[in-house]
Amino acid sequence: MFTPRSIKHCRACGGVVRYATPADDNRDRATCTVCTTIHYENPLNVVGTLPVWEDKVLLCRRAIEPRRGLWTLPAGFMELGETTEEGALRETVEEAGARVELEGLYSLLNVVRVGQVHLFYRARMLDTDFVPGPESLEARLFAESEVPWDEIAFRTTKRTLEFYFADRREGRYAFHAADIA
Amino acid sequence: MFTPRSIKHCRACGGVVRYATPADDNRDRATCTVCTTIHYENPLNVVGTLPVWEDKVLLCRRAIEPRRGLWTLPAGFMELGETTEEGALRETVEEAGARVELEGLYSLLNVVRVGQVHLFYRARMLDTDFVPGPESLEARLFAESEVPWDEIAFRTTKRTLEFYFADRREGRYAFHAADIA
Repeated sequence: MFTPRSIKHCRACGGVVRYATPADDNRDRATCTVCTTIHYENPLNVVGTLPVWEDKVLLCRRAIEPRRGLWTLPAGFMELGETTEEGALRETVEEAGARVELEGLYSLLNVVRVGQVHLFYRARMLDTDFVPGPESLEARLFAESEVPWDEIAFRTTKRTLEFYFADRREGRYAFHAADIA
Repeated sequence: MFTPRSIKHCRACGGVVRYATPADDNRDRATCTVCTTIHYENPLNVVGTLPVWEDKVLLCRRAIEPRRGLWTLPAGFMELGETTEEGALRETVEEAGARVELEGLYSLLNVVRVGQVHLFYRARMLDTDFVPGPESLEARLFAESEVPWDEIAFRTTKRTLEFYFADRREGRYAFHAADIA
């Protein structure tokens, strides 16, 4: 979760930071009292996939906090040096050990409370030789009737799965956006 | 532009930072040598709109660097405390003084070189009473034949405009994704 006004020292010189509104700005920024560097804080992207094999979706059971033991889609923070698609593929390998082919951006979910934007890609699994990574206790394919709805780790995962099964019933997949309160 | 390994001091305690790979990670992170806080660096979102009035699009001429004097769509860094849509609307007001209604996410452009993801929403202008803000020299409506293609500030703007006019010729608007090398 993002903690507003959490910057206490300047990353450039180590000097003490003060929150104030710069002359050409309209909100408080962490500004170094020594070297005047301004440190911006902005939302981060979480990128992942919804891997599908036949009539089943692939979920991972989390081996780490938060929400250890609960199920989620493979996803994680986007890194510098990669595209959203590359990040989504990387997380799918890291967390589920799954080989997939992306089929387009499927959901964008704003989670303002924690300063995050979650982006999920629909993904076609190329085989079922998936192997959970160190951040997952297990990875398993679920038919719609088997999905452990009460044990899903994050609401962005739950909404994306709900979008998917609803779209599948209608026989067409559309991009979905939603805000998680 | 993001500058890798630019963190020199810890934002929590001001101590000297060292880039090293934490035990449970697979890439170097800025780690404080004093209090062990890890500082992550991730891509940022730029959010904006493609405002449309009848057969024209609204562009702003930049009053600030980079690319001062060149034309762009209203857009800027997404802030904490807002959704992607709220950020896109805010930037449209701040840079163009335009009142719009969003019509869905239109383009997602990865600009890996600078660690940015640009998200543009298609937007219907509610009137033509737009007023350029302090970051714009002017704002003006352009028919396709009038667009100053050689004076567009950013490639993400140019690609989004190209997507729009191509879609309009085909009579259907679809979400577009692209990577800017």
